[in-house]
Amino acid sequence: MTTVGILGGGQLARMLALAGAPLGLRFLVMDTSAEACAGQFAPLLVGDYRDESALAEFASRVDVATFDFENVPAESAQWLSARVPVFPNPRALGLAQDRLAEKTLFRELGIPVPAFADVGSRAALETALAAIGLPAILKTRRLGYDGKGQFRLKPGVGNGDSGFGEAEAAADAAWAALGPQADRVGLILEAFVPFERELSVVAVRGRDGSFRTWPLTENWHVDGVLSASLAPARVDPALAEAAIAHAGRLAEALDYVGVFALELFCRDGELLANELAPRVHNSGHWTIEGAETSQFENHLRAVLGRTSGATSMRGHACMLNWIGELPDSVSVLAEPGGHWHDYGKSTRAGRKVGHATVRADTPEALAGMLRRIGDALGRQAQVEPVIAALSR
Amino acid sequence: MTTVGILGGGQLARMLALAGAPLGLRFLVMDTSAEACAGQFAPLLVGDYRDESALAEFASRVDVATFDFENVPAESAQWLSARVPVFPNPRALGLAQDRLAEKTLFRELGIPVPAFADVGSRAALETALAAIGLPAILKTRRLGYDGKGQFRLKPGVGNGDSGFGEAEAAADAAWAALGPQADRVGLILEAFVPFERELSVVAVRGRDGSFRTWPLTENWHVDGVLSASLAPARVDPALAEAAIAHAGRLAEALDYVGVFALELFCRDGELLANELAPRVHNSGHWTIEGAETSQFENHLRAVLGRTSGATSMRGHACMLNWIGELPDSVSVLAEPGGHWHDYGKSTRAGRKVGHATVRADTPEALAGMLRRIGDALGRQAQVEPVIAALSR
Ligand SMILES: Nc1ncnc2c1ncn2[C@@H]1O[C@H](COP(=O)(O)OP(=O)(O)OP(=O)(O)O)[C@@H](O)[C@H]1O
Ligand SMILES: Nc1ncnc2c1ncn2[C@@H]1O[C@H](COP(=O)(O)OP(=O)(O)OP(=O)(O)O)[C@@H](O)[C@H]1O
Repeated sequence: MTTVGILGGGQLARMLALAGAPLGLRFLVMDTSAEACAGQFAPLLVGDYRDESALAEFASRVDVATFDFENVPAESAQWLSARVPVFPNPRALGLAQDRLAEKTLFRELGIPVPAFADVGSRAALETALAAIGLPAILKTRRLGYDGKGQFRLKPGVGNGDSGFGEAEAAADAAWAALGPQADRVGLILEAFVPFERELSVVAVRGRDGSFRTWPLTENWHVDGVLSASLAPARVDPALAEAAIAHAGRLAEALDYVGVFALELFCRDGELLANELAPRVHNSGHWTIEGAETSQFENHLRAVLGRTSGATSMRGHACMLNWIGELPDSVSVLAEPGGHWHDYGKSTRAGRKVGHATVRADTPEALAGMLRRIGDALGRQAQVEPVIAALSR
Repeated sequence: MTTVGILGGGQLARMLALAGAPLGLRFLVMDTSAEACAGQFAPLLVGDYRDESALAEFASRVDVATFDFENVPAESAQWLSARVPVFPNPRALGLAQDRLAEKTLFRELGIPVPAFADVGSRAALETALAAIGLPAILKTRRLGYDGKGQFRLKPGVGNGDSGFGEAEAAADAAWAALGPQADRVGLILEAFVPFERELSVVAVRGRDGSFRTWPLTENWHVDGVLSASLAPARVDPALAEAAIAHAGRLAEALDYVGVFALELFCRDGELLANELAPRVHNSGHWTIEGAETSQFENHLRAVLGRTSGATSMRGHACMLNWIGELPDSVSVLAEPGGHWHDYGKSTRAGRKVGHATVRADTPEALAGMLRRIGDALGRQAQVEPVIAALSR
C-alpha cells in the first residue's frame, strides 16, 4: 500500500486523489486550512508548511510527496526531501518560484523570453524601464499567482507627452503598488508582449527521463486568471513542435519528475516563454475527459516511478473555468460532450470554484456546444474567443 | 451541498463516490465492515442494515440513498424510504432479490426466460425436474451472487441410465447441496441454457422516465463469476435492439430510477433473460474510460433527478476482472489503451479485487493489446474468448 502525500489541499490535490484511487493509492493532504476541498475525498492534515513538527508527521505517514501548491517554502521542500522522496525535486520547485531565476534559465537554454530585468529598488526600476520601454509589467518575483502581484505600466498614464515624463509617471504608479513588497519577495520588470495567442505545453517526465506531452493547449486569460482553454491549439505544427522541444529541454535541465506546464506567448509566429508551473496545471484539466490518460494520473505515475500513460487525445476539448461562483450546470450537462467539475468550495470573489470540459469529435460540433452553453449562461464573452479559434 | 448515502461500501460504492466528486456531491457509505474499501475515499458508517438506530443515523445524514449491495433487506430499504428518497425504489430492489419473482415478471412482460419452477420441497424438485429435464440448475431464490448458491444438475451423475434414475440421482445431489437452505432463502430450478453467448444491457432511467442504454456488452463467466466483458458486443443490430427493448419495458414496469443491468443468454439467435441487477454492474465498468459518461456518473445523475449524460462509446473496450489477487499492472499500463483499477482491498480467494479496462479505436488494435497482456500475465485463457469474439 503506497501513500502519496500532497502539500496543498485545493482542487489540484482533490483531482490527484480522485485519479489515484483506481491505481490503488492512498493519500494524505496537508493544508493550512481545515476547509481545504481535497479533504472531502482524502485524509487531511492541517498545519503550516513551515511547522517542522507538522512536516515531520506528514513525512512519517507518506511514502512519497508532491505538490498541489507551488509556493510551499523551498526550505520545507528541502527538509522534507531529506526524509521522503519528493517530486518534482526542490530545486525545480525553487526555480519555478522565482520569476527571475526561471527567465534566466529559459534564456540559458535558448528558450526565447520577453525582455526582463531585476528590480531591487526604485532606481533599478528607472534603469529597467529605460532599457525595456513601455508598455511593461512589473511583477513580484515570488509568490504571485492568478495575475496577483502584477502591475501594468502603460504609455499615457503620465502627462500625455511621450518619452521620459510618461515613463516616470508609470514608474511612480507601479512603485506605489508593488514597491513595498520589493524587499520581501523581489520584483521583476518584463516587456509587455502584445501577443496574438497564449499557449501552454502540459508535459510529463518520468523518473527514467521519459518525456511525453499532451497536444498543445491554447489559453485565454481574463484579469490575469485563466478563463478558457482549447486543445489541440489551432496552431502550425512547426510551432507546436518548437514549444514541445522547449519544454523537453527545460525538463531535462531541471531533472524534472512529474507533470508541469510551460506557458508561452505567441507573437508574429514566434514563441516567448512566460513561466513554468511545477505541477498539474489548470490548462491541462481537459485531459480528464479529453485524453487517454489525464495529467493527474500521469503525474502520479511519474512520481511513483511507473511508465506514463498515452497522452493522445480524442477529438477537441474546451475547458471553461468557473471563477467566484458556479453557474447552473444544466446547460453543460445537457450537451453530449459536457462534463462538470465542482470543487466543493464555498463561493468567494476571484476563487477558482470549478470548471466544465466540453468534448466533441469535430471543431464544428464543439463550437455548437459552446455557443449553446454561452447563450444559456449569458457567458458569450467567455466562449466567443474559443469559438473564433475553432473556425480558424 | 447534497449528500448521497450508499448502502454497501464495496468497489461499486467506491467508484460511485469517485464519479460523484466532480459533480460536487458528498457521500456517506454504510457497511457492516470497517474495512469496506469505499471508506478509503468517502466517510463510512459501520453498522448492520437491520439495525434501526444505525439506519436512522444514516438517514439523518443523507439527502438521498442508493445501493452498492443489492441484498440489503427489503424491509430496511422500505423503512429508509419513509425517511429519505431511495432509488431504485424498494419494490424494484425487492423484486430483483428474488429470482422467482423476477423471472415471473420477465414472463409477464413478454421477455423470454429459460423454463423455471419454484422448488419448495424435495417433492417439488422431483416435479420440477420432470417438467424441465436435464441439464438444469438449482439456485437459491434469494441472496445468491457471483454464482454462489447454485448447483448444476447434469445427466450422467446417476447410474449411467438415461431417464428417471439419472434425474433422481442428480436431484439427490442437488438437494444435499441446497435443500437445507430451502426454508430460509427458497429455491428455484431453471433449465440449463447451452448458450452461445452471454450479453448484458446496462441502462439508466431518470426520475422523469427518460431511458438510455450503453452499447450492448458481451460477457464471459468462469465458475459463475464475471471474467471478461467486451463492448460493443459483436452481435446483430436487431438482436441488440430487442435486448434494449426488453430492458426498457422492465425499467418502465418497475418505475426504476438509476442504472441497472439486464443479463441475457443468447441461444440460436434468441434472447433469454437471466437476471436483473438493480445497481451499477460489473459488466458496465468499461464505461469509465470507454463511454462519454460512465455508468457511475449516470446512476448518480438519475438518482438526483438530473438528466443523464451521453452513453455513446469511443472505439472498443474490454474489461478484465481480477479475482482473488491483483496481477502486476505493468503490462496493462504499458498499453496505450490500458487502464488500471485497484479497489484497495486485501487479497482473498474468489474476491473481486480490481479490474483493467483496455480501450482501442479498432477491434484489431484491441485484440493486439489483449494478446500482449494475456501473454505477459500468463492469462491467455482469460483473454482468448474476447480475442476470438473480436475477429467475428
Ligand atoms: N509579459 C507579459 N506580456 C503580456 N501579458 C502578460 C505578460 N505577463 C503576464 N501577462 C498576462 O497575465 C497573465 C498571468 O500572468 P503570469 O502567468 O505571469 O501570472 P501568474 O500570477 O503566475 O498566473 P498563473 O497563476 O495563471 O500562472 C498571463 O497569462 C498573460 O495573459
Ligand atoms: N440457466 C442457466 N443456464 C446456463 N448457465 C447459467 C444459467 N444460470 C446461470 N448460469 C451461469 O452462471 C452465471 C451466474 O449465474 P447468475 O447470474 O444467475 O448468478 P449470480 O450469482 O446472480 O451472478 P452475478 O452476481 O454475477 O449476477 C451466469 O452468468 C451463467 O454463466
